[in-house]
Amino acid sequence: MSTERTIEALRTFMAERDWGQFHSPENLAKSISIEAAELLECYQWDGDADRDEVTGELADVLTYALLLADRLDLDPEQIVLDKLERTGRKYPVEKAKGRSTKYDRL
Amino acid sequence: MSTERTIEALRTFMAERDWGQFHSPENLAKSISIEAAELLECYQWDGDADRDEVTGELADVLTYALLLADRLDLDPEQIVLDKLERTGRKYPVEKAKGRSTKYDRL
Amino acid sequence: MSTERTIEALRTFMAERDWGQFHSPENLAKSISIEAAELLECYQWDGDADRDEVTGELADVLTYALLLADRLDLDPEQIVLDKLERTGRKYPVEKAKGRSTKYDRL
Amino acid sequence: MSTERTIEALRTFMAERDWGQFHSPENLAKSISIEAAELLECYQWDGDADRDEVTGELADVLTYALLLADRLDLDPEQIVLDKLERTGRKYPVEKAKGRSTKYDRL
Repeated sequence: MSTERTIEALRTFMAERDWGQFHSPENLAKSISIEAAELLECYQWDGDADRDEVTGELADVLTYALLLADRLDLDPEQIVLDKLERTGRKYPVEKAKGRSTKYDRL
Repeated sequence: MSTERTIEALRTFMAERDWGQFHSPENLAKSISIEAAELLECYQWDGDADRDEVTGELADVLTYALLLADRLDLDPEQIVLDKLERTGRKYPVEKAKGRSTKYDRL
Repeated sequence: MSTERTIEALRTFMAERDWGQFHSPENLAKSISIEAAELLECYQWDGDADRDEVTGELADVLTYALLLADRLDLDPEQIVLDKLERTGRKYPVEKAKGRSTKYDRL
Repeated sequence: MSTERTIEALRTFMAERDWGQFHSPENLAKSISIEAAELLECYQWDGDADRDEVTGELADVLTYALLLADRLDLDPEQIVLDKLERTGRKYPVEKAKGRSTKYDRL
């Protein structure tokens, strides 16, 4: 499956409902935070979450993240790979291996 | 570009650093919320955000979301499309068109 | 110590810097989410957080929460007590004791 | 009204329900983020939120913030005032007046 087809489906869905007017980058950023917290709620009291609920909330996070990428003309796969390269430079394997320490304390 | 290739790159990156041990679903859910808030911070005082900063933070949200999907053996594209179908039933075009009202108040 | 004195100190601080113009309820709500995530970051990979960092981030959450209460003319103590009473009705002791289950599943 | 009385009411409420067992600092930090996002949801599509909903969600944020302060033996008023002093040093009036710029860019 390709991201492009998914984004195309999202575009059609939003156009049918005329919802693009609500999807300013700022509103999409708020929406990502809101959905991320609903995902977190699945793990509020312990690490044992309901798989169906997690799936639905993760889908909501991804949906708004893809909408924001589309709105800003960003390729979601590409920005992940670009960031991964920058992260790799901040966390070289020999220093970061097996450690969750933040880069400025490595 | 395909999601599968991006996920493969993420897997390699994490394996090289032995970071999988930190990536319990719960920790990934926390990480998505943390990065979503860093994205929101770009819009803290107004809707006018720096494009490079937004790109980097959105990439972080997507990265952790893809890692969680992978951890739970979920296809990120498929769960977005499945959720879109359910959302479509909750928000039929004729009732939801042009309105940001929540489905239980439509 | 009393909340009123703390709020008074916050008001003076903000007035000196002419920051009230940025503190719309919406911007304060975003700020609370942003600071809450910085607090959560202290616990990103495990439950063992640095006390000083937690203290600083919790202070930021409380600061923005008090600013929002003040902006909306709400007494922070009173709204906590009012909500506690409503929560008590949703979670009666005999049903909720020792359980983290959400009220609609009790 | 004094914070101490409010915290006392929270303590009694939680003890009656034996909920202290769920309130690890980490779980409380997650809960603050979750409630902060529910507050943010009141402002998801515009700045015009329902006052009663905002009040209830802000109360939830404050409740968990007070519970975390209590759990860590921190005086909520004092940590706000201490942080205000540190913030004052990072944002001196003459540089910060009327500007929302972050201190490292002032």
